[in-house]
Amino acid sequence: MPTYDSSSPRSSRTSVLHGVRDLRWETREVAAPGPREVRVRVRRIGVCGSDVHYYTHGRIGQFVVTAPLVLGHEVMGVVDAVGEGVTRVKIGDRVALEPGYPCRRCAYCKRGEYNLCPEMTFMATPPVHGALAEHVIWPDDFAFPLPDAISDDAGALIEPLAVGVWAARRGAVSPGQSVAVFGAGPIGCTTLQAARAAGATTLIAVDLEDFRLDLARRVGATHTVNARHEDPITRIREITRGDLPETHAGVDAAFETAGSLPTTRLSLAAPRPGGTTVLVGLPPDPEVSLDIVSAASREVSIRGVFRYANCYPAAIALVESGAVDLDALVTHRYPFEQTPEAFEFAGGEKRASMKVMIDVG
Amino acid sequence: MPTYDSSSPRSSRTSVLHGVRDLRWETREVAAPGPREVRVRVRRIGVCGSDVHYYTHGRIGQFVVTAPLVLGHEVMGVVDAVGEGVTRVKIGDRVALEPGYPCRRCAYCKRGEYNLCPEMTFMATPPVHGALAEHVIWPDDFAFPLPDAISDDAGALIEPLAVGVWAARRGAVSPGQSVAVFGAGPIGCTTLQAARAAGATTLIAVDLEDFRLDLARRVGATHTVNARHEDPITRIREITRGDLPETHAGVDAAFETAGSLPTTRLSLAAPRPGGTTVLVGLPPDPEVSLDIVSAASREVSIRGVFRYANCYPAAIALVESGAVDLDALVTHRYPFEQTPEAFEFAGGEKRASMKVMIDVG
Amino acid sequence: MPTYDSSSPRSSRTSVLHGVRDLRWETREVAAPGPREVRVRVRRIGVCGSDVHYYTHGRIGQFVVTAPLVLGHEVMGVVDAVGEGVTRVKIGDRVALEPGYPCRRCAYCKRGEYNLCPEMTFMATPPVHGALAEHVIWPDDFAFPLPDAISDDAGALIEPLAVGVWAARRGAVSPGQSVAVFGAGPIGCTTLQAARAAGATTLIAVDLEDFRLDLARRVGATHTVNARHEDPITRIREITRGDLPETHAGVDAAFETAGSLPTTRLSLAAPRPGGTTVLVGLPPDPEVSLDIVSAASREVSIRGVFRYANCYPAAIALVESGAVDLDALVTHRYPFEQTPEAFEFAGGEKRASMKVMIDVG
Amino acid sequence: MPTYDSSSPRSSRTSVLHGVRDLRWETREVAAPGPREVRVRVRRIGVCGSDVHYYTHGRIGQFVVTAPLVLGHEVMGVVDAVGEGVTRVKIGDRVALEPGYPCRRCAYCKRGEYNLCPEMTFMATPPVHGALAEHVIWPDDFAFPLPDAISDDAGALIEPLAVGVWAARRGAVSPGQSVAVFGAGPIGCTTLQAARAAGATTLIAVDLEDFRLDLARRVGATHTVNARHEDPITRIREITRGDLPETHAGVDAAFETAGSLPTTRLSLAAPRPGGTTVLVGLPPDPEVSLDIVSAASREVSIRGVFRYANCYPAAIALVESGAVDLDALVTHRYPFEQTPEAFEFAGGEKRASMKVMIDVG
Repeated sequence: MPTYDSSSPRSSRTSVLHGVRDLRWETREVAAPGPREVRVRVRRIGVCGSDVHYYTHGRIGQFVVTAPLVLGHEVMGVVDAVGEGVTRVKIGDRVALEPGYPCRRCAYCKRGEYNLCPEMTFMATPPVHGALAEHVIWPDDFAFPLPDAISDDAGALIEPLAVGVWAARRGAVSPGQSVAVFGAGPIGCTTLQAARAAGATTLIAVDLEDFRLDLARRVGATHTVNARHEDPITRIREITRGDLPETHAGVDAAFETAGSLPTTRLSLAAPRPGGTTVLVGLPPDPEVSLDIVSAASREVSIRGVFRYANCYPAAIALVESGAVDLDALVTHRYPFEQTPEAFEFAGGEKRASMKVMIDVG
Repeated sequence: MPTYDSSSPRSSRTSVLHGVRDLRWETREVAAPGPREVRVRVRRIGVCGSDVHYYTHGRIGQFVVTAPLVLGHEVMGVVDAVGEGVTRVKIGDRVALEPGYPCRRCAYCKRGEYNLCPEMTFMATPPVHGALAEHVIWPDDFAFPLPDAISDDAGALIEPLAVGVWAARRGAVSPGQSVAVFGAGPIGCTTLQAARAAGATTLIAVDLEDFRLDLARRVGATHTVNARHEDPITRIREITRGDLPETHAGVDAAFETAGSLPTTRLSLAAPRPGGTTVLVGLPPDPEVSLDIVSAASREVSIRGVFRYANCYPAAIALVESGAVDLDALVTHRYPFEQTPEAFEFAGGEKRASMKVMIDVG
Repeated sequence: MPTYDSSSPRSSRTSVLHGVRDLRWETREVAAPGPREVRVRVRRIGVCGSDVHYYTHGRIGQFVVTAPLVLGHEVMGVVDAVGEGVTRVKIGDRVALEPGYPCRRCAYCKRGEYNLCPEMTFMATPPVHGALAEHVIWPDDFAFPLPDAISDDAGALIEPLAVGVWAARRGAVSPGQSVAVFGAGPIGCTTLQAARAAGATTLIAVDLEDFRLDLARRVGATHTVNARHEDPITRIREITRGDLPETHAGVDAAFETAGSLPTTRLSLAAPRPGGTTVLVGLPPDPEVSLDIVSAASREVSIRGVFRYANCYPAAIALVESGAVDLDALVTHRYPFEQTPEAFEFAGGEKRASMKVMIDVG
Repeated sequence: MPTYDSSSPRSSRTSVLHGVRDLRWETREVAAPGPREVRVRVRRIGVCGSDVHYYTHGRIGQFVVTAPLVLGHEVMGVVDAVGEGVTRVKIGDRVALEPGYPCRRCAYCKRGEYNLCPEMTFMATPPVHGALAEHVIWPDDFAFPLPDAISDDAGALIEPLAVGVWAARRGAVSPGQSVAVFGAGPIGCTTLQAARAAGATTLIAVDLEDFRLDLARRVGATHTVNARHEDPITRIREITRGDLPETHAGVDAAFETAGSLPTTRLSLAAPRPGGTTVLVGLPPDPEVSLDIVSAASREVSIRGVFRYANCYPAAIALVESGAVDLDALVTHRYPFEQTPEAFEFAGGEKRASMKVMIDVG
């Protein structure tokens, strides 16, 4: 039988997307957590680019919003009820929720590659609802207790940091290496910090906006390149060349986080022979024209990123230890009742913003 | 001081490429091997696609034949003189020569990635001469003794097998896995055999020619697909699907060995989520239009192959043990004096040929 | 609701260990499979050394038989009922059961290291019953369909092969390498075959019994050493030395499968510098005196084996492809009703036996 | 022809060990660097435990000082002459010398595992002389330029940091992990910092001396355990347990750096199941009694460390970036002429000392 916090509510205000730019409030009954599930009173939700894309376009590629959908998957809160058999967390624990859980039974799950599980349940991906509500119920093993040293905001941003940690693993970043990060938005900045935490000592951030590059420098970039003003590849080769010939200059790992064709091209050209390109973002068109020949003949490995697996514990430990700073990424904050305004802002001109945070209360 | 076989010759007949389809005979003085070098009386030279490309086009990409060039880099022979300090091999040893040696001092060499050394000396790549001669001098540590169980022909073909062994390593092939090889020419067949030796149990060969597919089957393919008659991706998904949904069908590793755009596209579509595409061949144009988005979002790793490192010992062991059959790949044979004819044949219609071997004597 | 084979029985004969050398027959009611479970009509059970140890000693280390226990964990049979939600297998399928299933939720399970899960349910390990019965119920994702090419006997022996596949992975065996296997019993022979399937070309089996060495040679050993008659380390160094000095002779990976102190010592001395020792067996005493200094200063990695994870699919593929021969290991066979006799035999003089198989029917 | 600094000297004062506690001064002629060699005017030499051991015992295991030997292998200085073909460094460069160079031709060198090369030339290991002299000549590719941000002292200590970087690699330390370091001397402190630079966030230092533990905390230990006062394993399990059962508590990687039997035992007990023990130090006796059974049955990998390969570039980058602090380790300093006093001190009571540095000038 589930156990409840004595002050448990009966209903939960929820923000529901009904169509393009159409968020409506609903009051939904609060269910009881099932066996090995926890119920969380939500405190913070970070607004992610994918949430904004559903809000402004009603779809992301093959995922189309055909029925009302709750957005939000960067989420932390406080446990207020636990289902049968829950032992890992208890009522009152502050937790970050890993927003996707897998089938636990297929070959991918058994091998530990659960991000590729064909039956993944992932928040705010149709038809699965997200967490933009006062309460959310989730499996206990995807609810991670947050140490006191981690703020509520940072707790919600464990999610984008998990993407960065996964990207750094895919790029096999190791101590003393050099990396270039294309795009210095929230994912670019968490990727850069994850690479730094893995030991990278030369960290080059590339973007078109000085605002973002300044922030990237604040969280650890050793070099910043504004691609409006200088050629990133030329600069990267100067920085990384060392005593090898020009042909062998380049970073150990390049990370594309902007999701544009030009940055995808740059990310293929940036690594040294034998290095790695990690595609965290993806160009908007499925079919793109690329110089894959040059990358392949230099034995550059090109590796995509699809969510992450087993990254929450590491991400939490890195923030707790001070190795990663997530609070610095929050530039705008809205109370829960202004959720529509938050989405309007986030879907508008972004030059001066990084991460928009919704304070659910 | 070098040591010589008592019957050592003074001169060496050499076949030299002076221009497109212009091979001329020269008699060159036979030099003495320097310290830690061996001199080899050449016995067999395999004709490689790159040799033929220089012969028919005078160039491969950025490498242009501007001065007379000796071709040939698939080579075995018998040691007939050894320089000072040579201990690994002795006069009379049958050896296969690994055709490239590195600077031994740069960061790549020190890390064991010597195939990416910026100062590689590689046979038959301008301005470095190949081995189409009666004698060749080479560093002793890139001359590998051949056990009796390996024929002279197979000894020359250790080189293309080394490419296959490297490809299988880049593809991280492991026991029980499935692979698809696009292109069933010599490199396709050595890659397939290397994958099989690494434990792959489902081996799908794809080509346009039944002749090649028959040979692929003879050396270990469990399935063959003639892409003229059926869609390779549909077939690959049928073969590999198992109990996972259609979206998760695909091989663990796909190998592109044909160097065409259509096979490059196929090789990106063939792996399961989390699998690997190894580009052994490369499409002819530097800039190609590909669905990299789909590959990346399934976390398929795309990895090029540039020659190989540390593969000769494994390749020799695999042939000696019987795990790999190289003799089956030799379909045509020419004596040394008919070298020009061998090149004319190899550069012509290839449907009914696999590997052309030159018997230097 | 579960689905049944129309001819489903009501009761299942079961062999139960009540104490040292005290196996008794019981007739137990046949339960219905729960959600995502299958019920299997058992056909074959292989007798493992651990089963025999419980039979003769009533315990293995900390695991003590304090209540009646069903033995047997090398098991295959035919599905005769499936629970709700089962899609991977169907009634009538021949399946091998992987005898341990994990909690699916802890950090180990999520990382794919489920063999180390603290809540593992493993057959025939007190208090979990094994499969020495006419029927057994098990999670569907740990029931693996057997292709026609695999015999019933071989299906039961997928289990010891999984140990070998795991050992070869832990030893990072790759094509062209050399291995030594200490102990040529069933686990030694499956380990040797798994190493061969992973590409090892020099395979040295060491035992005290020619009977076992002959069998090892039949399933792929290239060299056999009877340690009664010659020093295994001297022989291993002769075989593997190549052109390196004596100090650098040795196998790439050594596998201890006999569980004795002398073989543990040998397995630490057998690898080349930088090689690996895999301890599949374990010496009987917890505290042993070893030359770990020499192993460590040669950077030999010493790695234990505790069961296996994600090895059944590979093991099945290897047997189906013919890369591994399990039928050759079966030297003795008993009908189900002679189970006590089978255990008496297996627990007695073993010189002339390899694997004892019980035919449940 | 070599090129010289105009002020090049003709002779070099050298400190030579003639026997136990018998260091004598010699003036040796300064030779010219050969092709691809540099000559370095030495500035700093760190005194290592192995130097002290030769000084006080005249031997280390099998290496015996039978002829006069120059000690010292932690060395930095300024290039004052370069041989033919040197391009990587130039006269006037401050460099750290990697004190061992390999044959560059054997299988180990080709694979990048040059620390295991059978023909290694390693400073201050009989019969190879070390660097306790005003000048030393060395291959240019083992002379690494030091950025301005690295002090002379730190430049000499790149060597012990390279050991730590290698140990962290052998332990596969990754972001968010926990490590325990047994022994908080110079190698313990560099290992701890290398693990921290690789992302470890829980860093437990264990020693018998508070002086050392204080320093460990200063360079990054998050927890310190004085083994005189509390049981290290109990403490490590408390710190690392998380939500797993007691049996699964433990660090991801344990590092033994003290070279004693008790710490070797502790280092085997400290890792969680599936973790790693790295033996950086070695117990004094070749044959030791250990509970290897428990380690193996938890699948703890036990890996030795023999010097290092490819660690200087990373070590230099880590110090330059500020990720590692080497200056903090220098507790005592002697001018070159007091070299014998430095050795007497270092060979005496060590409780209050960490690293003794000789300022050669």
